[in-house]
Amino acid sequence: MDRLPRDPDNDYTREIAAARRRVVCEATHAALAHVGSFSFDPATLPGHLEGFAGPLLVDGEYARGEFYVPLATTEGTLVASYSRGMRLTREAGGVRTTVVDDAMQRAPCFVFRDARAARAFGNWVVSNFDAIKAKAEETTHYGRLRNIEQYAVGKMRFLRFDFTTGDAAGQNMVTKATRQACLWIQQQGIDGLEHFALAANLDTDKKHSLLNSLHTRGKRVVAELTLPAALIETIMHTTAQALFEQRQLSNLGSLLSGSVSNGAHYANAIAAMFIACGQDVANVAESSAGFSYGEIKGNGDYYVSVTLPSLIVATYGGGTSLPTQRECLEVLGAYGHDQVLKFAEIVAATVLCGELSLGSAIVADEWVSAHEALGRSRP
Amino acid sequence: MDRLPRDPDNDYTREIAAARRRVVCEATHAALAHVGSFSFDPATLPGHLEGFAGPLLVDGEYARGEFYVPLATTEGTLVASYSRGMRLTREAGGVRTTVVDDAMQRAPCFVFRDARAARAFGNWVVSNFDAIKAKAEETTHYGRLRNIEQYAVGKMRFLRFDFTTGDAAGQNMVTKATRQACLWIQQQGIDGLEHFALAANLDTDKKHSLLNSLHTRGKRVVAELTLPAALIETIMHTTAQALFEQRQLSNLGSLLSGSVSNGAHYANAIAAMFIACGQDVANVAESSAGFSYGEIKGNGDYYVSVTLPSLIVATYGGGTSLPTQRECLEVLGAYGHDQVLKFAEIVAATVLCGELSLGSAIVADEWVSAHEALGRSRP
Amino acid sequence: MDRLPRDPDNDYTREIAAARRRVVCEATHAALAHVGSFSFDPATLPGHLEGFAGPLLVDGEYARGEFYVPLATTEGTLVASYSRGMRLTREAGGVRTTVVDDAMQRAPCFVFRDARAARAFGNWVVSNFDAIKAKAEETTHYGRLRNIEQYAVGKMRFLRFDFTTGDAAGQNMVTKATRQACLWIQQQGIDGLEHFALAANLDTDKKHSLLNSLHTRGKRVVAELTLPAALIETIMHTTAQALFEQRQLSNLGSLLSGSVSNGAHYANAIAAMFIACGQDVANVAESSAGFSYGEIKGNGDYYVSVTLPSLIVATYGGGTSLPTQRECLEVLGAYGHDQVLKFAEIVAATVLCGELSLGSAIVADEWVSAHEALGRSRP
Amino acid sequence: MDRLPRDPDNDYTREIAAARRRVVCEATHAALAHVGSFSFDPATLPGHLEGFAGPLLVDGEYARGEFYVPLATTEGTLVASYSRGMRLTREAGGVRTTVVDDAMQRAPCFVFRDARAARAFGNWVVSNFDAIKAKAEETTHYGRLRNIEQYAVGKMRFLRFDFTTGDAAGQNMVTKATRQACLWIQQQGIDGLEHFALAANLDTDKKHSLLNSLHTRGKRVVAELTLPAALIETIMHTTAQALFEQRQLSNLGSLLSGSVSNGAHYANAIAAMFIACGQDVANVAESSAGFSYGEIKGNGDYYVSVTLPSLIVATYGGGTSLPTQRECLEVLGAYGHDQVLKFAEIVAATVLCGELSLGSAIVADEWVSAHEALGRSRP
Repeated sequence: MDRLPRDPDNDYTREIAAARRRVVCEATHAALAHVGSFSFDPATLPGHLEGFAGPLLVDGEYARGEFYVPLATTEGTLVASYSRGMRLTREAGGVRTTVVDDAMQRAPCFVFRDARAARAFGNWVVSNFDAIKAKAEETTHYGRLRNIEQYAVGKMRFLRFDFTTGDAAGQNMVTKATRQACLWIQQQGIDGLEHFALAANLDTDKKHSLLNSLHTRGKRVVAELTLPAALIETIMHTTAQALFEQRQLSNLGSLLSGSVSNGAHYANAIAAMFIACGQDVANVAESSAGFSYGEIKGNGDYYVSVTLPSLIVATYGGGTSLPTQRECLEVLGAYGHDQVLKFAEIVAATVLCGELSLGSAIVADEWVSAHEALGRSRP
Repeated sequence: MDRLPRDPDNDYTREIAAARRRVVCEATHAALAHVGSFSFDPATLPGHLEGFAGPLLVDGEYARGEFYVPLATTEGTLVASYSRGMRLTREAGGVRTTVVDDAMQRAPCFVFRDARAARAFGNWVVSNFDAIKAKAEETTHYGRLRNIEQYAVGKMRFLRFDFTTGDAAGQNMVTKATRQACLWIQQQGIDGLEHFALAANLDTDKKHSLLNSLHTRGKRVVAELTLPAALIETIMHTTAQALFEQRQLSNLGSLLSGSVSNGAHYANAIAAMFIACGQDVANVAESSAGFSYGEIKGNGDYYVSVTLPSLIVATYGGGTSLPTQRECLEVLGAYGHDQVLKFAEIVAATVLCGELSLGSAIVADEWVSAHEALGRSRP
Repeated sequence: MDRLPRDPDNDYTREIAAARRRVVCEATHAALAHVGSFSFDPATLPGHLEGFAGPLLVDGEYARGEFYVPLATTEGTLVASYSRGMRLTREAGGVRTTVVDDAMQRAPCFVFRDARAARAFGNWVVSNFDAIKAKAEETTHYGRLRNIEQYAVGKMRFLRFDFTTGDAAGQNMVTKATRQACLWIQQQGIDGLEHFALAANLDTDKKHSLLNSLHTRGKRVVAELTLPAALIETIMHTTAQALFEQRQLSNLGSLLSGSVSNGAHYANAIAAMFIACGQDVANVAESSAGFSYGEIKGNGDYYVSVTLPSLIVATYGGGTSLPTQRECLEVLGAYGHDQVLKFAEIVAATVLCGELSLGSAIVADEWVSAHEALGRSRP
Repeated sequence: MDRLPRDPDNDYTREIAAARRRVVCEATHAALAHVGSFSFDPATLPGHLEGFAGPLLVDGEYARGEFYVPLATTEGTLVASYSRGMRLTREAGGVRTTVVDDAMQRAPCFVFRDARAARAFGNWVVSNFDAIKAKAEETTHYGRLRNIEQYAVGKMRFLRFDFTTGDAAGQNMVTKATRQACLWIQQQGIDGLEHFALAANLDTDKKHSLLNSLHTRGKRVVAELTLPAALIETIMHTTAQALFEQRQLSNLGSLLSGSVSNGAHYANAIAAMFIACGQDVANVAESSAGFSYGEIKGNGDYYVSVTLPSLIVATYGGGTSLPTQRECLEVLGAYGHDQVLKFAEIVAATVLCGELSLGSAIVADEWVSAHEALGRSRP
């Protein structure tokens, strides 16, 4: 499903890609010195390495206006597919984006003599939050300990430290800060404390968990909009009703399969943007989970949203300062400090466009095919 | 946790990276023309783009001997960490790898008048498997329809088509083949069939699901070995018992958080190898799930295994033919036809080394810290 | 939610309960000697112990016609609530029920030297299925080994033995049969077999699992019907559209919470019928999971279904032969041999009626309340 | 697995059951007028209806000393099996029990114009907690609104109201209180609020969810103790090591199957005690989930715990006031006000005994059988 039939109108060749980069340069005033500089000839490739989808119209709190979205992928058709979704949402007035939560975690596990000692420790943590916070924050300029969640099993008490981390993804930062806090806790003579593990799979780092879906890891972002029914037919060659019926089946498929997401392919946008923009690509594991929701309005329009509960992104530090990657962030106007929420919004808006594009392709194909096969259109 | 403190003995500079590439060239007789050819100066970067961890000693059915494993990451310490795990497993005799299953899916959902019609269709599918298989395989040279799983909910019948796909990851291939079969089914006058959706989140493509963990997506690979207790102490500065206790807490953390994996950070190895070797990086979402298992043997040695139930890899087609990526596969002797199981084994062995390295670091740090803090070592 | 406001038209007193039992007797020609015979005075209780909801009109393959459904509960309003749902579905033409699968399991775990030995064993099991089946069936008159599912992790191979078990729930039967087969397997000189555990939580007995939802435990039953829009308004004081919108939110709530069911309260019907009819009440844990689905038809009618993937029921043996419990089964015409699928159908139909009744109450209440609060009705 | 081979030393006949009731009466000074009063002859039954397991030695904060635990079951062997586990734990010094959390929920879903309005509402709820609490508590004498959890998806905001509910299970109480609060919220002119649903499957009422496992529903109780290695051999005919190895496989089986519990059969104890003691049996669905944990101590002893994260119990109101059920609670000294935590502790301790008994039976049987089959005992 992730590789749609090539659309000749959107297909890429080396020349088109270069021309498109020029458009992007002009539109964004970014100098693309490294993007498109290869040690081989991309025209020899079945797909291409780097493309810009768009323009994407975002109605965010941080990202406002049109953006050309860099996608590093060997699937040229993917760029075309995202561009098609972006055209739809642009003509519908743009994607509204909202960051609803923001926290990065490390979740140490404290092991006690028994459950009562673990429970007493839980109370102690509440009472000593300020001291723990002070200790943790000694290790970091940007990290702030926002709160500590507690989870009790047997004689163990897991603490889930929630930090805000500025413009960094922050896994390093919160690990050091949490470790510092844990070592300090260990020195406080807590009754019955046997030992602690700095991590024991509750964070949940580098793998998705329902806990992350519930309580956010990184940014929790919603992208949403209402699509006029007529626009869906004109641009996507399908109907709001058909998309909505597909949503019902997809919800069922997700519940039945125990999937981490009821979306179609969030991972495609996220992986392609993460590579292009210098993000830690291992975080695709967590960042690609989420929730899709659709609703037919009274007038037949189609409201859709995607929620990314654990989107881990950075606009400073790590791979973001590599030349090509930095250029890609700069094209989005999202490199450096105080840009991470803007970048998060653009990612979420892009994910939504990809869902609409692929969803429409699935539905339209079947409708068309059904028509061909049966000599009738579906009511 | 994913970013360990830098180990000065293993740290990378541009010179060391180049020297390391020379070693890899000599050891593997691969010409690295593109790996290490950048349009910018990697020495200016905080980390580096491409490193080789190893050598990794694999005792597989397809991968046999020592391998230098390409990791594309901006975290130099990650390469160092994997190398440390590889040293441990090499000195322990190497990692035994086994591909235990292999299938790629597309799971259409057929919607009927009622549950009885859906059930009758289920029986029809069993009776007509040969015809369905013939129809599906018309579209592909390499894809073979192995079997069709069936899942029943309400008036829907999901069919999960399982294909083998040669050396390709195969999502495209199985989508086309399944679509062809579905269109043919639609023409057979099945009683009560209303329509079908070619995909409805049961595949589960580009997102993890428990169904994938149970029934495999891509390759199902096990990497395992028994580590002598003394070796763990010498190389990892911790003990088998400490690693095993950490495993118990991690199992609990995974059960409690509803994680898709009880491993520590499978995604790190998988993302870095996927980028380096031209894999579809969006598949990190599915490929990074899995199961870790540990066991203290009677003599105190430590048996460990990782199981990757949904590893999606290719050694031909797509991004594998890009120059740098192809070189990386060639360094592993895993480019081209009939190499995909070899590559899958190397990925799984690498994942296991990373689990041992990070697991040891977590445990050793805490032990050391506890010692510093309390003036005693833990029994 | 499970305890609705008392409906004075449906409320129970001792006299009404007795009168209702007389109605049931006459309608079903069952002698209720034990039902309603208490060692205390039920009129002194806040609720009552045993009620009959209905009549329930079932359009099943085994259950056909009207049934008075025994519910053992201390919540009189529960009986009233189910009766209301039964009135709705009766006037809509009855609930269509279909048993789509039937199997009871025991899932031993075989532990091997390594994953390769485990894989070889997997192949051996396929080749030796007939012999394994013969051995297993030596221990039972009714149990038939239908197939063996295989699940591979590390050096373990879980076998999930699927039996049909006649009119018994069959957990005992399949445990003995599987044990016999395992002991025989153990004697066959399987290479690398270290030991086996007769059970290791994959069955999954006495607790729900997604595996059970996917692959059935006990009976997999669907109950479904299409409700005329007008009937929903007349009887339920709400609309098809409102019920459908509630379904959307409930789907989201279930996905987000990681629930074993997207239904509202399957457990209420199942627990009350299980107690009344001599079922093993511990099986409520597994039997109460399931999937709800709704669909607005072109003409505004509302199609609904419930799927119970792991309904564990018996009509012979165990508690079914206790006098009161047997009477309750006899009221349904479902005591004894060859009745278990009939009973399963009635349970599923009852669950569906309860979902409609509670769902309507939630929605209608809010609609009414919104009206009161805001002086307007919702469009 | 739930029905073990009958142990002739523990088997029940009508006489033994009566004698046992006399013992219980004398030990507990409770008058068992209704327990054992049947309208039929229990000696004609394959099993029996009501048994007392024990004595169970509990070292709780509320339950202290020996208890005879009423189990309503048709499986006489179940009572015997629990009694065996109780003997083991009694001789080991008793089961330590701890209630670590206590809350009952209703989780309404508020639907807004868009995600920003939903987010603003989330902040409003935090600022107006005291007013919401006051409004909710108007409807109840015992219910106290402890806190409100918030979960964000799309344009929805789920609020999970956490109440303490005195000695009642409290579902009714919290539904009324939450409804009152929601109606009040609806009148406050919240910007963008479209409507709310009083429940939408996030509670999660009458079905298990991971959310309940994480955040408690009803009582969260831990039962734990350390078993001397020798006692396991004497009483259970197996070893600590064997039990621990079985735990490893069971953890794996639970992770792989997506089970709501890694325990063996919590539901058996819970269902039998719930029926006997007048609890709402539908709550078996939620109450039977949980977490088992085991640890071999340095000296070879075996530490075990069970955690019940969502145990829903009452000692006052509902079915607890029925004569037989009240008697059963009185036998435990747990009828009436301020007894609910005591009862919760006894349930958890009973669950633990059942886990040990069944676990040992599984392991011992296989060990014996392996011995018979292979002419050797396993190390």
